Amino acid sequence: MPDLTNQQFILKSRPTGMPTTDNWEYRTAPAPQPGDGELLVKVHYISVDPAMRGWMNDLKSYVPPVGIGDVMRAVAVGEVIESQHSGFRAGEFVSGALGVQRYALTDGSELFKVDPNAFPLPTYLGVLGMPGLTAYFGLLDVGRPEAGETVVVSSAAGAVGTVVGQIAKIKGCRVVGIAGTPQKCEYITGELGFDEAINYKKEILPKRMRECCPQGIDVYFDNVGGPLLDVVLMHINRAARIVFCGAISMYNTTSAVEGPRNYLSLLVNRARMEGMIVFDYVHRYPEAIVQMVQWMREGRLSGREHIVDGLEAFPETLLKLFSGDHFGKLVIRVKD
Amino acid sequence: MPDLTNQQFILKSRPTGMPTTDNWEYRTAPAPQPGDGELLVKVHYISVDPAMRGWMNDLKSYVPPVGIGDVMRAVAVGEVIESQHSGFRAGEFVSGALGVQRYALTDGSELFKVDPNAFPLPTYLGVLGMPGLTAYFGLLDVGRPEAGETVVVSSAAGAVGTVVGQIAKIKGCRVVGIAGTPQKCEYITGELGFDEAINYKKEILPKRMRECCPQGIDVYFDNVGGPLLDVVLMHINRAARIVFCGAISMYNTTSAVEGPRNYLSLLVNRARMEGMIVFDYVHRYPEAIVQMVQWMREGRLSGREHIVDGLEAFPETLLKLFSGDHFGKLVIRVKD
Repeated sequence: MPDLTNQQFILKSRPTGMPTTDNWEYRTAPAPQPGDGELLVKVHYISVDPAMRGWMNDLKSYVPPVGIGDVMRAVAVGEVIESQHSGFRAGEFVSGALGVQRYALTDGSELFKVDPNAFPLPTYLGVLGMPGLTAYFGLLDVGRPEAGETVVVSSAAGAVGTVVGQIAKIKGCRVVGIAGTPQKCEYITGELGFDEAINYKKEILPKRMRECCPQGIDVYFDNVGGPLLDVVLMHINRAARIVFCGAISMYNTTSAVEGPRNYLSLLVNRARMEGMIVFDYVHRYPEAIVQMVQWMREGRLSGREHIVDGLEAFPETLLKLFSGDHFGKLVIRVKD
Repeated sequence: MPDLTNQQFILKSRPTGMPTTDNWEYRTAPAPQPGDGELLVKVHYISVDPAMRGWMNDLKSYVPPVGIGDVMRAVAVGEVIESQHSGFRAGEFVSGALGVQRYALTDGSELFKVDPNAFPLPTYLGVLGMPGLTAYFGLLDVGRPEAGETVVVSSAAGAVGTVVGQIAKIKGCRVVGIAGTPQKCEYITGELGFDEAINYKKEILPKRMRECCPQGIDVYFDNVGGPLLDVVLMHINRAARIVFCGAISMYNTTSAVEGPRNYLSLLVNRARMEGMIVFDYVHRYPEAIVQMVQWMREGRLSGREHIVDGLEAFPETLLKLFSGDHFGKLVIRVKD
C-alpha cells in the first residue's frame, strides 16, 4: 500500500447562526495505518444532512457534539482498502459515520456492508440510507398512517420527504407535499405520484392547506418546524399524529426560537407530537431495507440525488441544505 | 309536585379575556315539567372547572360552544325529583352535564347514577368525577409511568393534580408537584405524600426543577401550559411523555399565545406530547371508578373540596380557578 494523503474537514470553531468557511480547517495529512482490529476505508460519497448543523453545537443532544479539532462527523460510503479486522476485507464496500474526509480509519463498529452491484453507491446514503430509514420508521412507527388518511410532509422533495410521501402512497393515503420551487412540486406530484404539492414560497398556506386537505390532516411528517407547523396545527384531525423529525428552518436561528403558537390544537384534538431519531431503530434497519428494496424493484419507490463533486466543496455544499438550493439527496463525490 | 322556580346562569355574551359579570344573565323561570322519556333533577352541587372557559368561546373544539342564550354547561350532581324515564326513579342521585341551574330537565343521556351513601356527593365531582377520571386515564393511558420514574404535575393541589400525584405514588414513581402557595405545597407533600413540591410563585423554577428531579423528568402532566412547560422541556428524559391535559394559564389570554420555545427538546429526546380529553374514555369510566374506590377505601387516594355556597356565586367562583384563589376541587353548593 503506497503512502496515502488524507484530506479532512476539521471543526475549528462553532458557528453562531449559519456556518461559515471560518468554522472549518481543511487539513492534509498522511492517511493512518490500520492497527489490529481496524480497517481503512477510502471514502467515495459523503452524505450532507441537516442533522450536521446540530452536531456542530456544544449542546446536550442525542449524540455528543463534534469536538473542536475533530473531523466533522458525516455518514459516508466507501471501499475498504486495508483491513486488520476479521469482519472486513479489502475490496468490500461499507457505509457508516466515516466523517468528512478522504480516508477513514475505523474499528468497524456501526459499519454496514453495502453491495455496489445492487444499487449505485449514493442510494445507500439516500433511500437505503439514513434518510430512507428515517422516513420508514418515522412514518410507519410514529405516524402510523391508515389507508384513506391524509398525510402531509414538509421538505417533500428532500431525501426524507420523498420517501415519506411514496411510502404513504403505498399505504393508500392521500399525500400532500410542501416544497419550495415549482420544479420540486412538479417532481413530487408527477414522478412520485403525490396527490398535491404546495409551494410554500409562492402560495397562501392556510388557504392551500384547506384546499389540499379537505378531510383535514391525520399525519404530519415535519422536517422543517417553524410557521408551517402552526398552519398544520390549524388543520389537524382528532387523534392526529405529528412526526417531529426535524426543524431545519430553526437550526441556524440566532434569535430566540418561537414555539408553535397553535399547540393548544394538540389538546383539543387529542393529537400527538412525537420526536424521532433514526438511530433508535438500528436493530430494525434490516427489516426496513428488505421492504424498501422490494418496493424499489417493483418501481414504487425511487430516489434522486444531487451530487456535488469534490471533498473541498463541503462547506458551501452544507449551506445548500438551508437555502433549499439543491434538489434531491445532497451528496459529495470524493474525486481522486 | 308543587310549582318550582328555576334559577339559571345564561351565557349572554362571550368574554374577551377574563369573564365578567356582564357575560351572564341570572334568569328566574318556572322549572320545566318532564315529558315522556324525560326526568327533572334538583341540582345539589355544581362542578366549576377550567374547561368551562373554553366552552364559552365560539371556536371549533371537542364539544360545541355554549350558545348565546343557553344555560351554561356544567357537570353537576343532584337528585331525581320527577321522572317519566324508565331508567330513573325519583329519589335517585345522578351526575352529568346538568348545567349551572337549580333544576335540570334531561333525557337521561350521559347521566350516571351515584350512591350518596357510599361517598359524599361532592366526591362524585372530584376524585370520582371528571377530574379524577381525567387524572386516571391521562396519567395511566397517556403518561404510562413506570415504577422509579419521575412524574411532574402542575396545578398539583388542584382537582386533577392531586389525583395524578397520588396515583403516580401508588405506581412507585417519584412525584414532584407544582403549586402556587405554601399551604398547597405543604398539603401535597404532607397529606398526599408527594416527594417534592415547587412553589412556582416564589422559587426559581429551573434551579428547583433540577434539584427536585435529579434523574430528569419522565412524565409531565400539564394542566397549565405557558412558561412552566418550557422549563419542563429543558429537563425531560429520553422518551419522556407530556400529557397535555390543560393550559389554564392561557385560557384568558387576549394577546397572541406563545408556543413552547423549547419544543425542539421533543425531537432531541424522542419525547411525546399528547393531548387528552376525558370524554374519549367514557366506555372505560367504570373500570377507573372501581379501581379508585378501592384505593380510597385503602386510604391511598383522597380528595379535598373547596365548597362555595349559593348558585348565585357562580360568576365570581369561576374566576377563582384562574387566580388560584381556591384550594381543592371547586364546587358550588346549591342551597334551598
